[in-house]
Amino acid sequence: MRLSRYLLPTSKDNPAEAQIASHRLMLRAGLIRQEAAGIYAWLPLGLRVLRKVEAIVRDELHRAGAVELLMPTLQLADLWRESGRYDAYGPEMLRIRDRHERELLYGPTNEEMIHEIFRSTVRSYRDLPMNLFQVQWKFRDEQRPRFGVLRGREFLMKDGYSFDLDEAGARKSYQQMFVAYLRMFRRMGITAIPMRAETGPIGGDLSHEFIVLAETGESAVYVDRDMLSLDVPGDDIDYRGDLDAWVDAWSVPYAATEDVHEAARFEREVPPERRVRTRGIEVGQIFYYGAKYATPMRVLVTGADGIERPIHGGCYGVGVSRLLGAIIEAGHDERGIVWPDAVAPFQVGLVNLQQGDEQVDLACEALYKELQRAGIDVLYDDRDERAGGKFATMDLIGLPWQLVVGPRDLKQGMVELKRRATGERETLLIDTALAKLLKDAHRASI
Amino acid sequence: MRLSRYLLPTSKDNPAEAQIASHRLMLRAGLIRQEAAGIYAWLPLGLRVLRKVEAIVRDELHRAGAVELLMPTLQLADLWRESGRYDAYGPEMLRIRDRHERELLYGPTNEEMIHEIFRSTVRSYRDLPMNLFQVQWKFRDEQRPRFGVLRGREFLMKDGYSFDLDEAGARKSYQQMFVAYLRMFRRMGITAIPMRAETGPIGGDLSHEFIVLAETGESAVYVDRDMLSLDVPGDDIDYRGDLDAWVDAWSVPYAATEDVHEAARFEREVPPERRVRTRGIEVGQIFYYGAKYATPMRVLVTGADGIERPIHGGCYGVGVSRLLGAIIEAGHDERGIVWPDAVAPFQVGLVNLQQGDEQVDLACEALYKELQRAGIDVLYDDRDERAGGKFATMDLIGLPWQLVVGPRDLKQGMVELKRRATGERETLLIDTALAKLLKDAHRASI
Repeated sequence: MRLSRYLLPTSKDNPAEAQIASHRLMLRAGLIRQEAAGIYAWLPLGLRVLRKVEAIVRDELHRAGAVELLMPTLQLADLWRESGRYDAYGPEMLRIRDRHERELLYGPTNEEMIHEIFRSTVRSYRDLPMNLFQVQWKFRDEQRPRFGVLRGREFLMKDGYSFDLDEAGARKSYQQMFVAYLRMFRRMGITAIPMRAETGPIGGDLSHEFIVLAETGESAVYVDRDMLSLDVPGDDIDYRGDLDAWVDAWSVPYAATEDVHEAARFEREVPPERRVRTRGIEVGQIFYYGAKYATPMRVLVTGADGIERPIHGGCYGVGVSRLLGAIIEAGHDERGIVWPDAVAPFQVGLVNLQQGDEQVDLACEALYKELQRAGIDVLYDDRDERAGGKFATMDLIGLPWQLVVGPRDLKQGMVELKRRATGERETLLIDTALAKLLKDAHRASI
Repeated sequence: MRLSRYLLPTSKDNPAEAQIASHRLMLRAGLIRQEAAGIYAWLPLGLRVLRKVEAIVRDELHRAGAVELLMPTLQLADLWRESGRYDAYGPEMLRIRDRHERELLYGPTNEEMIHEIFRSTVRSYRDLPMNLFQVQWKFRDEQRPRFGVLRGREFLMKDGYSFDLDEAGARKSYQQMFVAYLRMFRRMGITAIPMRAETGPIGGDLSHEFIVLAETGESAVYVDRDMLSLDVPGDDIDYRGDLDAWVDAWSVPYAATEDVHEAARFEREVPPERRVRTRGIEVGQIFYYGAKYATPMRVLVTGADGIERPIHGGCYGVGVSRLLGAIIEAGHDERGIVWPDAVAPFQVGLVNLQQGDEQVDLACEALYKELQRAGIDVLYDDRDERAGGKFATMDLIGLPWQLVVGPRDLKQGMVELKRRATGERETLLIDTALAKLLKDAHRASI
């Protein structure tokens, strides 16, 4: 993409309304633009990251055997009366009347609708287990939206739902999602730690929140340092096999949010040098809720014995748009964002230091074409701007690599390659720099 | 995908509420499920087609130089007061109040918001031309929703907007989208004919509707038969070059909807044997509206002469979810849907005629893996069902190829390959059938 033809409204000024780094940086780097309180437009650069995060979520859920569908954003109020949640949900639910005075709502979550779809289409134990998910916009009318996408009102969420014949099956489905979440967050380049959680308005008796550690997080967390270096399952994971070992490794060591923290247990179980007290941002939560929805909504399947029983369910959320805020909170410095490679909007920023100089322009065009041909996403800063401004923009938007072409180096056939995360710079022959980027892209794709 | 693990609720019965073929078939083939009047959930098979259609739209717009962003579904009412459309829009606009009694609406279209984003981020002629688009859910509160996704209330739409310094530039942008639309619909396997149209509530002085011919279409259309065999531009199209020849070829011959039809001109210009009188479904519409929004909303850019002027705009819609209805209206028979290859949810349906027979199961598993390895989307009917039911399901869901494995043929190392569109069947050696499918997939990918 040529920056001269792109919409990338960056800014040097810190927006007054933004209290935390990710909010400031998402506005300054031109990722989002606020359209109303807690409601954002995703500008081209932000949308690219959103789609990359979404693709990783989808890919890992497919691998775990889940099937994707898509429910509408608006729902009938009557459906929520069946489960008893319509009146209980409170002012966070955006209630709407259509032209015929029919009561609708903008879905804050979809347990009711997925149970309605399931009960009207599945009848027999032979169709179980089933795990369905969607990635769709939701709305929660927060009293006081803030922190950008971390506490917005209209947000993109992955919500998944499992259906099993009995509790043992449902706990297995829960484990599969637990493990899929470990893999998905690791692939995004962040460490999200599962922490035992309250089940809240969703209900049920088992739940974990997945929490990204960040000083600016919304709640205090207490973690055994050993959890920060745990492995996650590899690509050869067999989701139908025994997952106990992985789940235990990630749920036995101490990790708790302030809501459920037990100070005495923390000090008893974790030696002082391993006690991490910091803050965290929730990026996902999983629940086993049994027949909480199936019983009132009469979601029944016939077992092998011919008897109808309510299904055992679980639900599994990932805050897709929220993840961008969490990833930035966990990865930025005073100059801007530092994207992990897997979710960066472009892999390489190509900087032309002397737009209009024939040799530099030619070299940049050749590099631009070469990188694109190799399947590498490259943003080419071909604007007629000063070098200082171009460097500041590249640091702000945080692409993993900067490839800088200036007249002086070019006379020696050299370019400068900078790694954003470390600040490390090397002056290299053009072909050496290209080979390094291709090798890096190849490593990232396997 | 194994059908035993998929959610595909097909039905033999014609739903009473569905008056036209596409609506009936989308419900019967388990593509969608109605959740409220004009509001549908996209079941897994339907979602796959929706995503394929969306991907073709996106790809052709990128090729034409457009840049993608994503606006929220909800908008502030105040934004529409600026353009003067808030009171004018009528009861099709879904008006909402949030918990603070702030007036919102569910966007039926996005001219106001994109102009607001543009004016706050772009100032100079140097940033023009710019062409921005999104694929996002919209809501229009139809008085009487019907015909399934053809006249739904919540629907997926691609809306694009061009910004130019002057009328000549804006007309060039219009031509680029005109040509991109020719390519995109052709790639989907349908013939959509541009027809000069009224501009309606969007405004402006130039507009074309793109109409798919179908007997069940919403409006009568009158077309010169020669238009049905026109070529579209190839992959080597240069969007910056002269597009007059393509636009003329597709806009000079007679083609009109009943709204603008001139019977006398039709009979004067088109010889009797070339006069096609049929019906059609609108799948896209493009508009040049000049400064209609830029003037009231003060969307100004500074020209090379230092003077500020309102931009010249156009907007470009594609009914992404509606396209599924149109594609089915144009492609079905009495047994079910006949998907064009490019948008089919799976390329191949693999039918096991004797689930539980060891040899047949083994052969099917091997074919399933082989096709997947070749990157071919395959739906494997591994259910324990009678052959007749399996054939009926495959014909109903309309995958381009059916690969049928039964015990009798298998003893001779043979399988049956059926082409859904023609009904043609061949009994072939396993490797020959595989080679044919691989060759077909390869042809489709170039």
